[in-house]
Amino acid sequence: MKAVRLFEYNRPFAESLRLVDVPEPEITGPFDVIVKIAGAGVCRTDIHIAQAVWQQALGDPKLPYTIGHENAGHVEAFGSAVTGLAKGDPVICHPLITCGLCYPCRTAYDMACEHGVFPGLDGADGGWAEYLKTSVRNIIKLAPGTDPVPLAPFADAGITAYHAVKKALPYIHPGSKVVVVGVGGLGHFGVQLVKVMSTGTVIALDSNRDRLDFAREIGADEVALAGDDGGVAEILRLTDGRGADVILDFVAENGTPQQALRYLRPARGGTYIVIGYGGQVSPTTLDMIANEINILGSIVGSYSELTELMELNRQGRVHITSTTFPLEDYAHALDELDAGHVRGRGVLVP
Amino acid sequence: MKAVRLFEYNRPFAESLRLVDVPEPEITGPFDVIVKIAGAGVCRTDIHIAQAVWQQALGDPKLPYTIGHENAGHVEAFGSAVTGLAKGDPVICHPLITCGLCYPCRTAYDMACEHGVFPGLDGADGGWAEYLKTSVRNIIKLAPGTDPVPLAPFADAGITAYHAVKKALPYIHPGSKVVVVGVGGLGHFGVQLVKVMSTGTVIALDSNRDRLDFAREIGADEVALAGDDGGVAEILRLTDGRGADVILDFVAENGTPQQALRYLRPARGGTYIVIGYGGQVSPTTLDMIANEINILGSIVGSYSELTELMELNRQGRVHITSTTFPLEDYAHALDELDAGHVRGRGVLVP
Amino acid sequence: MKAVRLFEYNRPFAESLRLVDVPEPEITGPFDVIVKIAGAGVCRTDIHIAQAVWQQALGDPKLPYTIGHENAGHVEAFGSAVTGLAKGDPVICHPLITCGLCYPCRTAYDMACEHGVFPGLDGADGGWAEYLKTSVRNIIKLAPGTDPVPLAPFADAGITAYHAVKKALPYIHPGSKVVVVGVGGLGHFGVQLVKVMSTGTVIALDSNRDRLDFAREIGADEVALAGDDGGVAEILRLTDGRGADVILDFVAENGTPQQALRYLRPARGGTYIVIGYGGQVSPTTLDMIANEINILGSIVGSYSELTELMELNRQGRVHITSTTFPLEDYAHALDELDAGHVRGRGVLVP
Amino acid sequence: MKAVRLFEYNRPFAESLRLVDVPEPEITGPFDVIVKIAGAGVCRTDIHIAQAVWQQALGDPKLPYTIGHENAGHVEAFGSAVTGLAKGDPVICHPLITCGLCYPCRTAYDMACEHGVFPGLDGADGGWAEYLKTSVRNIIKLAPGTDPVPLAPFADAGITAYHAVKKALPYIHPGSKVVVVGVGGLGHFGVQLVKVMSTGTVIALDSNRDRLDFAREIGADEVALAGDDGGVAEILRLTDGRGADVILDFVAENGTPQQALRYLRPARGGTYIVIGYGGQVSPTTLDMIANEINILGSIVGSYSELTELMELNRQGRVHITSTTFPLEDYAHALDELDAGHVRGRGVLVP
Repeated sequence: MKAVRLFEYNRPFAESLRLVDVPEPEITGPFDVIVKIAGAGVCRTDIHIAQAVWQQALGDPKLPYTIGHENAGHVEAFGSAVTGLAKGDPVICHPLITCGLCYPCRTAYDMACEHGVFPGLDGADGGWAEYLKTSVRNIIKLAPGTDPVPLAPFADAGITAYHAVKKALPYIHPGSKVVVVGVGGLGHFGVQLVKVMSTGTVIALDSNRDRLDFAREIGADEVALAGDDGGVAEILRLTDGRGADVILDFVAENGTPQQALRYLRPARGGTYIVIGYGGQVSPTTLDMIANEINILGSIVGSYSELTELMELNRQGRVHITSTTFPLEDYAHALDELDAGHVRGRGVLVP
Repeated sequence: MKAVRLFEYNRPFAESLRLVDVPEPEITGPFDVIVKIAGAGVCRTDIHIAQAVWQQALGDPKLPYTIGHENAGHVEAFGSAVTGLAKGDPVICHPLITCGLCYPCRTAYDMACEHGVFPGLDGADGGWAEYLKTSVRNIIKLAPGTDPVPLAPFADAGITAYHAVKKALPYIHPGSKVVVVGVGGLGHFGVQLVKVMSTGTVIALDSNRDRLDFAREIGADEVALAGDDGGVAEILRLTDGRGADVILDFVAENGTPQQALRYLRPARGGTYIVIGYGGQVSPTTLDMIANEINILGSIVGSYSELTELMELNRQGRVHITSTTFPLEDYAHALDELDAGHVRGRGVLVP
Repeated sequence: MKAVRLFEYNRPFAESLRLVDVPEPEITGPFDVIVKIAGAGVCRTDIHIAQAVWQQALGDPKLPYTIGHENAGHVEAFGSAVTGLAKGDPVICHPLITCGLCYPCRTAYDMACEHGVFPGLDGADGGWAEYLKTSVRNIIKLAPGTDPVPLAPFADAGITAYHAVKKALPYIHPGSKVVVVGVGGLGHFGVQLVKVMSTGTVIALDSNRDRLDFAREIGADEVALAGDDGGVAEILRLTDGRGADVILDFVAENGTPQQALRYLRPARGGTYIVIGYGGQVSPTTLDMIANEINILGSIVGSYSELTELMELNRQGRVHITSTTFPLEDYAHALDELDAGHVRGRGVLVP
Repeated sequence: MKAVRLFEYNRPFAESLRLVDVPEPEITGPFDVIVKIAGAGVCRTDIHIAQAVWQQALGDPKLPYTIGHENAGHVEAFGSAVTGLAKGDPVICHPLITCGLCYPCRTAYDMACEHGVFPGLDGADGGWAEYLKTSVRNIIKLAPGTDPVPLAPFADAGITAYHAVKKALPYIHPGSKVVVVGVGGLGHFGVQLVKVMSTGTVIALDSNRDRLDFAREIGADEVALAGDDGGVAEILRLTDGRGADVILDFVAENGTPQQALRYLRPARGGTYIVIGYGGQVSPTTLDMIANEINILGSIVGSYSELTELMELNRQGRVHITSTTFPLEDYAHALDELDAGHVRGRGVLVP
């Protein structure tokens, strides 16, 4: 079958990643499931993988392997112990294959599974291919008849935004100002989810005017252009000088953390949530205590959170904006993402 | 009456602060209370005040004023609208005089009162004196017959540790390793409170062996000496290489934040709580998300928290270790604190 | 001035309650506020008061007194210590005058104030009059130019629904089925608030088809007619036989508690919240544990909750449906309420 | 092997339950584990099973089957997919075998597993036998060298108390009065756990003076004899007339629910937690709201909670008091329990 595999770090996308022919995966264990990929999302993390940003954190995985960690499709085959699935069922895959037995798995925090496998990221083959081998443990059935193609980005971009907004909820009440930094693949979920899940007011912040228009279309109450000062003055203006109660930073590089600390509300527990990466956040400890700031990291989300998010999508409360590309055009899709040309999320279709 | 007032920043203690004679305070408002000071705590923040560390954050208060924000004594007089108090009642004073009407006051977060006055800190006269004028809003009655002298440090050191430990509770379960950094005035409450309020295991970290012995006496399960590496290797050893689940940093300067991030547990929401100040904490955003770290500032605590803490003290579950000095010896008391010679907390007695 | 006062229990409304002339209230304390009433809500509790249902619970208040506990209007006068108010400001009054000093007031639970006064209920004069004397502690300023007349019912019906929905939030996630029992004055807020504050699905239950149509108009996802079986079969049908995850019972009499326990979801912590009163709830302890049921009482809400709710109204997220009556027609307004003819809430205008 | 099986309901214990010889269980699935029973607890629920109290709730399980749901022992054998266990490892068994895949299992609420099997209760063979067949999913390894015999009752009595106390924690603060009703197998854990896990004050209530002495020995702050009025007057006296903030009712029959509602604190969210069963709780809805009461059912606890509890036991913070009986004396052990003669918990040893 066709698969896009990572062969080498830090080359142009079309060289680091190559479309090759590999054997189809086979069922070997009782809980295995093989999914025929309908759509596979294109994530900034794929760019970072090719740039070796994750190489060390992931223990230097053996190359080549197939990337792609936002996967949706149809059930193709499954192991002997799997119940409740039938060939052809539309499904979405939680990105992590978890053990179900360790303390994190037992306490609804399965993203910290002590034995987790992350296809498309840590060396296990991912979903930029015709078929993906995974486990019943990370399969979520979609409603009968659902087209999984456009939904793939829920599997990572969606759940990551959902998890981060859940973290923010204790700090949001009616009248709270919530800044969403970056209205890309994750941020476009973030804007919607703050409105659906909380009583806060959303201010979308981006350096691109088109994205701010997009933010308004999907529900942002206010928008702010990140000009020379990163939007600090505009956010202060929109919050009557008080600053933001909560900041969801889907960028977290190129100075956004420094700017965030300047428009985070002093006093009363202003909360800065880091979801993007690439930068550094450096408050003094006096800042931390004098304003009683919270700085919270957030990554992906649990299986049950993805279940909840797909239910919100089924009910029509959360929508996805995506653009499809043929699998062969993966390098073009990455270039478009890198250039900031994709509205919402790109999806590869094998 | 006698009072120790701040006249000038950044001089030797005996010159920045001078014992002078000032008029006794008088009741002017219906909710005023005058407390005859029995004991007033000596806090590292008093040193920082004299060093102008807080000058800007407090809006450059007009000098001179009487310092001292950890106050306990007996009711001397009160305004016309005060009920439930009698002359001679032993009391402790919450450090902030709050309005009771703003949103923070209404939501149990009165430390963020929008109209708060902080005697001894922001220019209002504090308690290093014979009498303190305050409000019924920050008075807590002690059990009849209680000697307030040794209890004064509960008013700031105690409540600050209590509030920080409360913040830590959601992250502690049986088996969690909680590191208390610095076993001084605040930390000696921290060690006890983690044991009383949570099911975690306490590891006390200090650069001074005597303080580690002291930590053991008051309940620490393990102790670690902060040697050349700040205790990083020892904490990792004591946690089987996993790192600490929660860190309560009562120092937060001289490198402790950098060290903390090295022994904070990767994965599963390791939580670093900043209570001291003077340093800087600088994780990369990749660190923040890859390990899903929480960094939380914590300052003082609410009136109701001080009520709760005094109840724990009354029940004998939390004890104070303090050394008294005559008010006249305030400069010596500050020198002893600065030199790390005070076990627990120093208290001035007028 | 004109005032409707309770003279006698258990007579026709026009005899129990009489419109009489009484002296206007005067400022006597520093925190007093006099409000010129613009609108005063008509609540089922007013009926219950006249029927002596609350007589014992309230300590047999001395008659006569002016009733009316849902009050909005304009500031007329205020005491010497009041700041931030001007004559003519539009305001709404939290129903309880609280002390601000006791432990419940300090912990955001001021409805349990140990020294609270409840005008219109406990013998203090309420708002079915031209003027109401209250305190700055229970005044919430509305946005300049707001017409307070139709908003009065937020002061009790609104906040009671808000507080109850807040209690329900920990038990609601995407896909949860939340039944709102009774779409009257409180329930019409309940339906809206579940949608605004949670990710649950709302099923409105009422015995009156018009009210079910009304429920649909204001956002209910599904409706169920409470026929012979109180709607049990219909709710089970709408929940695929699983039952409701959360029930908000704004009626809680005439058998609704018994019915609720029949359609409450067995297993996984089904939660039944009691807001109305008049009936009895009688599970066996085996039912309580085998299905791990929660039964929670809920009454009114705190001052800060009313602040939050008025902000949601200001933002246009929560609306009120009300019908005005001249103050003189109070008995007719009560008859209409008793007969179930009022859509939303009735409001008396002096 | 020897096993005690339920053959018939509602006969004397020695006839309802008979010691018989049955084949040893065998490994058939990849996650199976066979435990050589060291100790199996004797629970009031075993009496209720024999009395058919659970017959209907459990769907009328086919007789005979082996009872015993509090099991500890040593690993004897395991299936092909099991890792981390070795023959001879001391273990304790969570009472429910869960699927690990359903929404409750995914959200740390595995007691509500949609496909759970409850050996010893629902027709699957339990642990009053030489060997128990269970799954790796409900096995918790004990520290090497631990004697599992006396620990068996943690598996149900212990975890049930732990789960109930966890439910109580949000309602307990320093100074709160927590009444533990019934100092038997569950209650003796309850008394200890309130002290270890919370800052509340424990009042133990029992009709038996010996048990009150026992309660004092294991940490109760106060004790109350349940005389003619069930202890109502004594609890009110011990709480200065205010009543209990939280009640943990491990009996919940023979009038204890009615009594509990009489000494539950009016106002401020008094919380009554039902853990025992056999009675009925019947507040009026007016009682529920006027005092804003919470009534919460509680049953067993999750796998992760048992992990946490065993850690507290390992640390020496929670102890068990148990009496062993040879397996053959099961009927005598049940009689002793029924007569209230067992201090702590009885344990059968095969």
